Amino acid sequence: LVFVLSSAIIVYRLPWTWKCSKLLMKFIHAGLNTIAMILAIVSMVAVFEYHNARNIPNMYSLHSWIGLTAVIFYSLQLLLGFAVFLLPFAPVPLRAALMPIHTYSGLLIFATVIASALMGITEKLIFSLKNPAYSTSPPEAIFVNCLGLLIVIFGALVLWMASRPHWKRPPEELPEVSRRNGGTPEGTEAESTMTDCSNADRSDVGFNSEAARKRNLKLDEAGQRSTM
Amino acid sequence: LVFVLSSAIIVYRLPWTWKCSKLLMKFIHAGLNTIAMILAIVSMVAVFEYHNARNIPNMYSLHSWIGLTAVIFYSLQLLLGFAVFLLPFAPVPLRAALMPIHTYSGLLIFATVIASALMGITEKLIFSLKNPAYSTSPPEAIFVNCLGLLIVIFGALVLWMASRPHWKRPPEELPEVSRRNGGTPEGTEAESTMTDCSNADRSDVGFNSEAARKRNLKLDEAGQRSTM
Repeated sequence: LVFVLSSAIIVYRLPWTWKCSKLLMKFIHAGLNTIAMILAIVSMVAVFEYHNARNIPNMYSLHSWIGLTAVIFYSLQLLLGFAVFLLPFAPVPLRAALMPIHTYSGLLIFATVIASALMGITEKLIFSLKNPAYSTSPPEAIFVNCLGLLIVIFGALVLWMASRPHWKRPPEELPEVSRRNGGTPEGTEAESTMTDCSNADRSDVGFNSEAARKRNLKLDEAGQRSTM
Repeated sequence: LVFVLSSAIIVYRLPWTWKCSKLLMKFIHAGLNTIAMILAIVSMVAVFEYHNARNIPNMYSLHSWIGLTAVIFYSLQLLLGFAVFLLPFAPVPLRAALMPIHTYSGLLIFATVIASALMGITEKLIFSLKNPAYSTSPPEAIFVNCLGLLIVIFGALVLWMASRPHWKRPPEELPEVSRRNGGTPEGTEAESTMTDCSNADRSDVGFNSEAARKRNLKLDEAGQRSTM
């Protein structure tokens, strides 16, 4: 789940995708997030079934409260993103106004999911390690603690990748580098193949991120701000 | 601790401080972070003493690992920030290169501290609520869960405030709106009084953030990028 979510977040930050069409990238972003949402629902159902089977109360812990809050906001984010950015009805000013909020909520939900995972790991270690107890640091405890640290490091890397371009290029330009996509976005992710990349109108954008960044700045100066 | 840390983070984002001198704001930022660091050390000592007094092993939980990692990185951040941004020896290109990393690490440490606090709350609730158990949702459990949610909301607001200007104005311009401060930064926070604000060379910057933003953009266009 965390990995699909991460790929959905950083999919716009991969320089080799900048020559792909904006619409294709939007479908990949939406598709990956939909997969992550399905995985989240499946895992929540599993948790409730496990609790019910063992007569453990549901939704009593802070982990569950924060986790459910994150999933609820994630589904809202997904629906709003679909309605505003994927369907062709939303006017450009609305998209421009909502994009910073969309980006911020996405990263916030990602960070909250990581915090929730760490709390879940803490709970699980306390409840499962009884003999020897968690506090005596058995090998399992060390191993899972390391896993928790790795999740933090992984999350930090994703947030670094996701936040870097905002400091390197004009704001709100990055996800909007190509022209407005007027087409009918009725396809699914499966329909969008990587061959679309060669049809993109900005296939001249190089693989070099520095060159692409300068190009964006130049476009921006010339007043050719792309719409979304 | 979290509140002092937060004030240190958002101290540059308050429009009424934009007419204060850069040096004064740096001292306030450094001073607040130093206070937060002292509070962190005091609370860690308290935790170790509590564990030793009750014969509870130290540093076995994921909460402790992540918490200690955050405090270690926080002290590194403080030392590096002091050496590079407060002392007058670091050359401007080094400051420019380190500023995005400093900002990112600061926000990441803040988020990690919040995650660590949530894990600590989870642990404490599980260990302390035995009769009635945490899983039966006694009033204390509900109350502390709400506290945890409020910490998440509070952290989200601080991160929103801290990240917004980066999307609203030219990157790396915000903390650098005033002239280069060449003076000898040997004072302490106590020496810097708010009356300094009236001596700032950009006291004409209005309280209106939109006007200030436009002014910054204009300065930027005119090639009058301030150094740091």
